[in-house]
Amino acid sequence: MIYNQVPSGAGRLPLQPIRDGHQESAVVVDFPQTKKSNSTGSGATRLAESLSNLLHLHVETPARGTWTNLEHYTDWNALMEEKHSIPTMSPKEVISDKWHEIQGLKSWENLLDPLHPLLRREIVKYGEFAQATYDAFDYDSFSEYCGSCRYNTNKLFQKLGLTKNGYTVTKYIYAMSQIELPRWLERSHLVESSWSKDSNWMGYVAVSDNEETRRIGRRDIVVAWRGTVSPSEWYEDFQRKLEPIGLVGGAEAKVEHGFLSIYTSKSETSRYNKSSASEQAMKEITRLVQFYRERGEEVSLTITGHSLGGAVAVLNAYHAAKTLPGLPISVVSFGAPRVGNIAFRDELHNMGVRTLRVVCKQDLVPRMPGLLLNESLQKFDELTGTLEWVYTHVGTELKLDVRSSPYLKSSLNLPGFHSLETYLHLVDGFLSTTTTFRGNAKRDISLVNKSCDMLVDELRIPHCWHQLSNKGLVCNEHGRWVKPKRDPEDVPSPTATTSRHHSLHFHGLHQRIEHPDSVIQPSYV
Amino acid sequence: MIYNQVPSGAGRLPLQPIRDGHQESAVVVDFPQTKKSNSTGSGATRLAESLSNLLHLHVETPARGTWTNLEHYTDWNALMEEKHSIPTMSPKEVISDKWHEIQGLKSWENLLDPLHPLLRREIVKYGEFAQATYDAFDYDSFSEYCGSCRYNTNKLFQKLGLTKNGYTVTKYIYAMSQIELPRWLERSHLVESSWSKDSNWMGYVAVSDNEETRRIGRRDIVVAWRGTVSPSEWYEDFQRKLEPIGLVGGAEAKVEHGFLSIYTSKSETSRYNKSSASEQAMKEITRLVQFYRERGEEVSLTITGHSLGGAVAVLNAYHAAKTLPGLPISVVSFGAPRVGNIAFRDELHNMGVRTLRVVCKQDLVPRMPGLLLNESLQKFDELTGTLEWVYTHVGTELKLDVRSSPYLKSSLNLPGFHSLETYLHLVDGFLSTTTTFRGNAKRDISLVNKSCDMLVDELRIPHCWHQLSNKGLVCNEHGRWVKPKRDPEDVPSPTATTSRHHSLHFHGLHQRIEHPDSVIQPSYV
Repeated sequence: MIYNQVPSGAGRLPLQPIRDGHQESAVVVDFPQTKKSNSTGSGATRLAESLSNLLHLHVETPARGTWTNLEHYTDWNALMEEKHSIPTMSPKEVISDKWHEIQGLKSWENLLDPLHPLLRREIVKYGEFAQATYDAFDYDSFSEYCGSCRYNTNKLFQKLGLTKNGYTVTKYIYAMSQIELPRWLERSHLVESSWSKDSNWMGYVAVSDNEETRRIGRRDIVVAWRGTVSPSEWYEDFQRKLEPIGLVGGAEAKVEHGFLSIYTSKSETSRYNKSSASEQAMKEITRLVQFYRERGEEVSLTITGHSLGGAVAVLNAYHAAKTLPGLPISVVSFGAPRVGNIAFRDELHNMGVRTLRVVCKQDLVPRMPGLLLNESLQKFDELTGTLEWVYTHVGTELKLDVRSSPYLKSSLNLPGFHSLETYLHLVDGFLSTTTTFRGNAKRDISLVNKSCDMLVDELRIPHCWHQLSNKGLVCNEHGRWVKPKRDPEDVPSPTATTSRHHSLHFHGLHQRIEHPDSVIQPSYV
Repeated sequence: MIYNQVPSGAGRLPLQPIRDGHQESAVVVDFPQTKKSNSTGSGATRLAESLSNLLHLHVETPARGTWTNLEHYTDWNALMEEKHSIPTMSPKEVISDKWHEIQGLKSWENLLDPLHPLLRREIVKYGEFAQATYDAFDYDSFSEYCGSCRYNTNKLFQKLGLTKNGYTVTKYIYAMSQIELPRWLERSHLVESSWSKDSNWMGYVAVSDNEETRRIGRRDIVVAWRGTVSPSEWYEDFQRKLEPIGLVGGAEAKVEHGFLSIYTSKSETSRYNKSSASEQAMKEITRLVQFYRERGEEVSLTITGHSLGGAVAVLNAYHAAKTLPGLPISVVSFGAPRVGNIAFRDELHNMGVRTLRVVCKQDLVPRMPGLLLNESLQKFDELTGTLEWVYTHVGTELKLDVRSSPYLKSSLNLPGFHSLETYLHLVDGFLSTTTTFRGNAKRDISLVNKSCDMLVDELRIPHCWHQLSNKGLVCNEHGRWVKPKRDPEDVPSPTATTSRHHSLHFHGLHQRIEHPDSVIQPSYV
């Protein structure tokens, strides 16, 4: 259905909104009069409003669904108290005999609506891997490590409570961009002592441990790509230019040049990007695939990311499919923008990459780039000559709706609609497009408000609550509030991107992992 | 000098700015071009700008002072590292033989410029008592205890690291206002379960312990009044109306009706203000004075407060002087607005109340109310008929200057200029009006940025860093982020404002202190 043949032809592009396109039919913005909008990010809100005006988007105020399992809770306090003692983790079913279907090797046919419970669980797992790239990122511009991961590879999942997922981080990925991207790079004020002037921590490679491998029926390599937290700036600018991907050939396949720049940029003068993010990722993926194949194991590659990270995940999947033919490759993206043109999409699909694109109906980011120039143009025969330049979504869509959850405010809140935690909450509660929010959803609802203001006030969860005590300052033995030095083992080291490794046994496997050797290389810190 | 005779006469008030008045000569606003303004509170900034425009205030950009002890520190990092190991506490000299002078019983003659080191230490001590009313306040509008103190009287100083000052809290004071004051009351969203619908924690009474009493030469009772944190709203409105104080008589003495309302309002339907803040404070002061006088001790009363709290402190001092003649009463206020008219000021002085008004030159709040109608009008003979309605400062001024500190940004930052921690930093470094910042000032510089953005970026101290880990949410044993219940002994109880007390020995003294009896009164919480 979404792999329609590309018709040919040419014509001028209409500047009116395309109302009846399948995927761009309408932005439904709900303005309930009874709730005040506590939307954060006024810039984003303004952008959304101007976009709405620009496109003459109609404002629908459909009745909210009724939540049969929840509507008798007039006392939210009692509801929450009851929820507080329910464990957040559901039992882990063995899926070893159906992992091909769950990984989308049959394009998730008949698994999405209604959503299969086992698939739901896996989507949330990969989403949590993407969320980790935000939760561990150092945003403190007064830190000399601004833009790095706050923990080393060995501690990341433990610090974030993700050891439950049964994976081990083996490698960090760093990225730079040779194109000046608006607000992409998080940079330390302390230029002189900064750990890196041009790179940011961009994600990581992890691999399933033995127990999880048994459960899921194959050794699963995960790559998680970090997105951007406040998308309002970049998606104004990120709709400029499609560029031949040229990574490994690729005919007419073209992708957005900003995403490509982040994925492929490198520089000899850089400390962390003497090799590009793409080279770092592919080197580690290749190493792990070879390692486990040599052991006779079945291996899969799952690439995940939110927002910009979802776009880079798609580039990474394309790259991996070119490099490692025959490897089962899946992408699970959340709120990702369009990445490339129709040729890119078709080539990706033909190489066997399966993409599950989780999209929230109210989120504007997946409409970028190509708010006007997108796959809905295909029906205009006379326009098809432009299709080489038309942005196109890839893969299969799982569409979420903010209004499906009784816990969420539906008033206009662009950062909230785009937030990955909002997505994970909606996936957790999603049953089907025609039924209501899952009453027995177990994921902690409070997580939604980590970095936005989406939960209804009755839940009493503060907005943007994910913050350090005293912004990381601690009172020392002399009574002074100081910024503690980062634990030496968590100080990033450029060796992570070069070939220095040492051997270590863990989880019964003999694997190379990166060595936090900053202590013996003080000149780098 | 500031107790000039009041001339008589009448006339229309000029609406032009009074440029040559002694205390209103100019607002010096420094806009260094080389630093970007990181001012928080755009509302406040806009107000400041519009006020500046309104008054045609000229903008001076005087050269910053040179800091002989500091200017060789081009490496701020080294400076801070060095400071980090210096204890924040200086030795406590015994001042028992000179406490009258230090308390201002001689109006601080020859003690202010240069500032006597022993007086500096006492000013900081009282300022820290005022600061405690902010640091312990519950601002969380999702808390059922929003507007209360987060700790009970026994734990307050311990939690805030103030036990070093040698005082014991004996009573909390609550206030309400029958006048609708803009943004004064911090209110819980949870109206039904809220601890109080109409009252806020407004301050406390404390008394020196035996050791401190020996050091300072008398038993010192302290009353600390809470101000408001963001003054930008209320000082737009707080310039309306002088009202006869009428507390205990008082001739023509008139005070601002908003301040008076907070000090005197009570209501039978209120839970915490069946008696007014004034009654609560005076009852406890009277009790303590009687208790220690019966023991043959010399007793003093020191009332402190910042901003609005400084105004209420002056009302409280007036009230105490009327009620307890012969008691040495001092006020140490920080960034306080004007309170009353000239008759009020004169009566206060004639009763023997001594007020040390610590004012930062760049802070606009002390210019309120009466930005136009103030004591500088006295020189216009023809206007003096209006003087009964003219706001007037009381007492003796200690004038600070933001630009005296090499650690502070001097770009326009109204909340920063008004912040009590900025004041305490400037007092700590003040030597005299003609010399530079004290090189051996020991107070922790980081404290300045607790709730504002005043420290130069080179110090790497985050702005507004005073925050709870995850806004107080904690991860419970089931993996859910929840707001923990407040420790029952810290739950406010209305008995604190009524007559229920029990006896307790502490610090070797037999005193009545309030009982945190919420556990046995669940209906109140």
